[in-house]
Amino acid sequence: MKNVCGTSRIAGCQFTLFPMSNQFVEIILTALEEVDTSKVWKDTDDVSTCVRGRIVHIFDVTKAIFLHAAKTGEHVAMSGTFSIGCPGDTDADVYMDETEEPLNKELSASITQQAGCKFALYPLGREDYMDTIYQQIDLSKSRGVTVSGSHYATRLDGDVHAIFHTMQDAFQQAQEEVSHVTMTFTITANSPSNK
Amino acid sequence: MKNVCGTSRIAGCQFTLFPMSNQFVEIILTALEEVDTSKVWKDTDDVSTCVRGRIVHIFDVTKAIFLHAAKTGEHVAMSGTFSIGCPGDTDADVYMDETEEPLNKELSASITQQAGCKFALYPLGREDYMDTIYQQIDLSKSRGVTVSGSHYATRLDGDVHAIFHTMQDAFQQAQEEVSHVTMTFTITANSPSNK
Repeated sequence: MKNVCGTSRIAGCQFTLFPMSNQFVEIILTALEEVDTSKVWKDTDDVSTCVRGRIVHIFDVTKAIFLHAAKTGEHVAMSGTFSIGCPGDTDADVYMDETEEPLNKELSASITQQAGCKFALYPLGREDYMDTIYQQIDLSKSRGVTVSGSHYATRLDGDVHAIFHTMQDAFQQAQEEVSHVTMTFTITANSPSNK
Repeated sequence: MKNVCGTSRIAGCQFTLFPMSNQFVEIILTALEEVDTSKVWKDTDDVSTCVRGRIVHIFDVTKAIFLHAAKTGEHVAMSGTFSIGCPGDTDADVYMDETEEPLNKELSASITQQAGCKFALYPLGREDYMDTIYQQIDLSKSRGVTVSGSHYATRLDGDVHAIFHTMQDAFQQAQEEVSHVTMTFTITANSPSNK
C-alpha cells in the first residue's frame, strides 16, 4: 500500500447537477458559464464534473453552480463526493497556487434559496473513525440549519449558504484530524413535494 | 465508540432518481410503482429514497428502478450510496427474513440499456483499506464492462445489468473482508452527450 498521507492536501469534488426539466442542457451550461471556475481544475464528462484545488474554492464553485441552477426556479438537485488526502491521488490536475479569496462569493450571496440536503462523512484508514463522524454531527447543530438524522446520512434543511457552510466546516475539521476524508452529499431545491 | 461490527449485516442504499425531464414526477412514480419493493424496507422523502434489507434485494430494487426510468428514453440518472455494517446502525426498518430470490429479475431482464457509471468503494475503520479498494478495481476488469479510472472514482461503461453486477460483486466481496463498507455511485443513461 502506498501511503503518502499528509503530503498532499489537494481537495476535490466529483459532482453532478441534475435539473429536472426539459431545459436541463441550458440550465447546466448557463450555470457553468456564470460561475467563475478559474481557481480550480475542472473536467466534465457525461456522468459528472470534477473540480480540484483548495478546499475553499471547491466549495465556492459547487455552491455557486447549484445556486445558479436553482435560481431558475426549476426543481434542481446536485449529488457529489468531496475528497481529500487519498493515498492513490496524484499531484496532477490541481491549481494549488491560487489565493484563498473565493471568486463567486458576491454573486452567490445575491441568491437566497432554501434547500434540503443529506450528507455523510467518511474518515478513512482509521479505526476510531466513528468518533470523528459523531463529532461532526454534533458540530453541525449550531450553524443556522435544521439537523436531523436518517439512515446512512445526516439531513440539513435551510438556506443553501448555511448548508454548504456546515458541510465545509465538517469536511475542513475532519481532514485536520484524519488524512483521507470523503464526504457525500445530495442537495435538492424547488421540489414540488415542498409546495 | 459503539462497536457492533459483524453483528449486523443489514444492507441499505440511500439513492435519488433524477429524470432530466418536465415529466420527472410521472417517471419517478411510475418506476416506483412498476418495481416490486416488497422484500425491502423503503422510505422516500424530497431528497432521496432509502431501501434496507438483504444485499441481493437492495441491488435488485435499485437496478430495476433505474431501468424502468431509463426505458422512457428520457435522460435519467441515479446517484446513491450503498452501505453495510455501520456501527451506528440499528436493527430497525429491515426486512431480513425474506428469501434470496430477487423479485424484479425477469422484468429487469427484459430491458436492455447502455449507461455510464462512476463508483467508489469505501471500506471503513481499517488501516489497510486501500488494499481492498485496489482488489475490487482489479476485479471489475472482467465483467463485461469497460473500466476506466478517473479522479476519486472508477468508471464503468456498458449494459446496466453488467454495471450493477460489477458493483454488487465489488460490494459483496469488500464487505466479506471489512465489516463497514460504503459504495457511492452515479449512473446515467440516454445522455445527449452520447448522441
